[in-house]
Amino acid sequence: MSKGPKPFQVDLDPKTGIPCRYKDKQVRRLSDLRGFFSDNDFVEGLLGRGKNPIIYEVYEIPQIPSEGLFSLACTVLHPGKVGREYYFTKGHFHAKEPTSEVYVGLKGNGIILLQTRDGRVAPLPLKAGGVVYIPPRWAHRSINTGKGKMVFLAIYPSDAGHDYESIKRSGFARLLVERGSKPRLIKNPVGKGK
Amino acid sequence: MSKGPKPFQVDLDPKTGIPCRYKDKQVRRLSDLRGFFSDNDFVEGLLGRGKNPIIYEVYEIPQIPSEGLFSLACTVLHPGKVGREYYFTKGHFHAKEPTSEVYVGLKGNGIILLQTRDGRVAPLPLKAGGVVYIPPRWAHRSINTGKGKMVFLAIYPSDAGHDYESIKRSGFARLLVERGSKPRLIKNPVGKGK
Repeated sequence: MSKGPKPFQVDLDPKTGIPCRYKDKQVRRLSDLRGFFSDNDFVEGLLGRGKNPIIYEVYEIPQIPSEGLFSLACTVLHPGKVGREYYFTKGHFHAKEPTSEVYVGLKGNGIILLQTRDGRVAPLPLKAGGVVYIPPRWAHRSINTGKGKMVFLAIYPSDAGHDYESIKRSGFARLLVERGSKPRLIKNPVGKGK
Repeated sequence: MSKGPKPFQVDLDPKTGIPCRYKDKQVRRLSDLRGFFSDNDFVEGLLGRGKNPIIYEVYEIPQIPSEGLFSLACTVLHPGKVGREYYFTKGHFHAKEPTSEVYVGLKGNGIILLQTRDGRVAPLPLKAGGVVYIPPRWAHRSINTGKGKMVFLAIYPSDAGHDYESIKRSGFARLLVERGSKPRLIKNPVGKGK
């Protein structure tokens, strides 16, 4: 007998994009993203008034961390802004650096912001029917610039791991903010990068 | 500067499911699948009468074969039958065995038939909005049981490679045939497996 996981099939709910069967669900509220948005005063003001909105949810079908296995995750990123900044996911490098990831857009639209440790930046659009390839050594953050939920399926090695700390420490080199009702990528005054 | 491929984004054509930008296109006609369908006489009869239909097309966005990179491919599997057997892809094991693959259904519907070298079999449905996980060491063949084209996106390690020969030699342990206008999985009289 071969070892390892069995094949499986899962449907994505046509209305929500969420896998009809998933194993783990994570909910990230504003308080979980303390230190990630640029306007800390705005964040603390909201939290101080008892407002702690859900920013995103992740529905995972993980495999044990092991070379050669793939995990699946569906991210539902809510629409909204923190100050001028659109809602985003924390963003992370893979802890195991030579690993890729693929996003398949299911609902809504936004930007996948990518960045290398030496500060190169690539903002790529993602919408339903779009695909984004994240090569090794590119941190990635999803940003919802739309009016509805942004939903996408991620496929990644089960042993890729997450390095959130580098992003929390240095930020991304760019911020995606609303200016005149439109998204605009601006230089992050405190972030590193080119 | 980090080495390696750059991030990219690609849209899938809403009508066809085919990536709007792809690098390689492969067309597999009946003659390319000689020896794969169970009814050889039927195949040779068609070819002898000058009939050589397209069975499937593959639109690839490959990366160089290198650990940690992912390639993308969109397969368009035409509807039809060769004798009683529905049109299918050749099917293959990965040459690099501890590698996975994920299929995301885009159009139509059919069956992904999976099999291990020790003969375990798993038939999984795939349709638009469905996802199939192919773990390491499971051969996989796509079979179109629908009336229209079956289209899906595959995500796989760029160094996974293809072992078609094992399948050509031994076949799958099951055949998917039409019986009374419905798909039915039957034991392959010449295939190995349980």
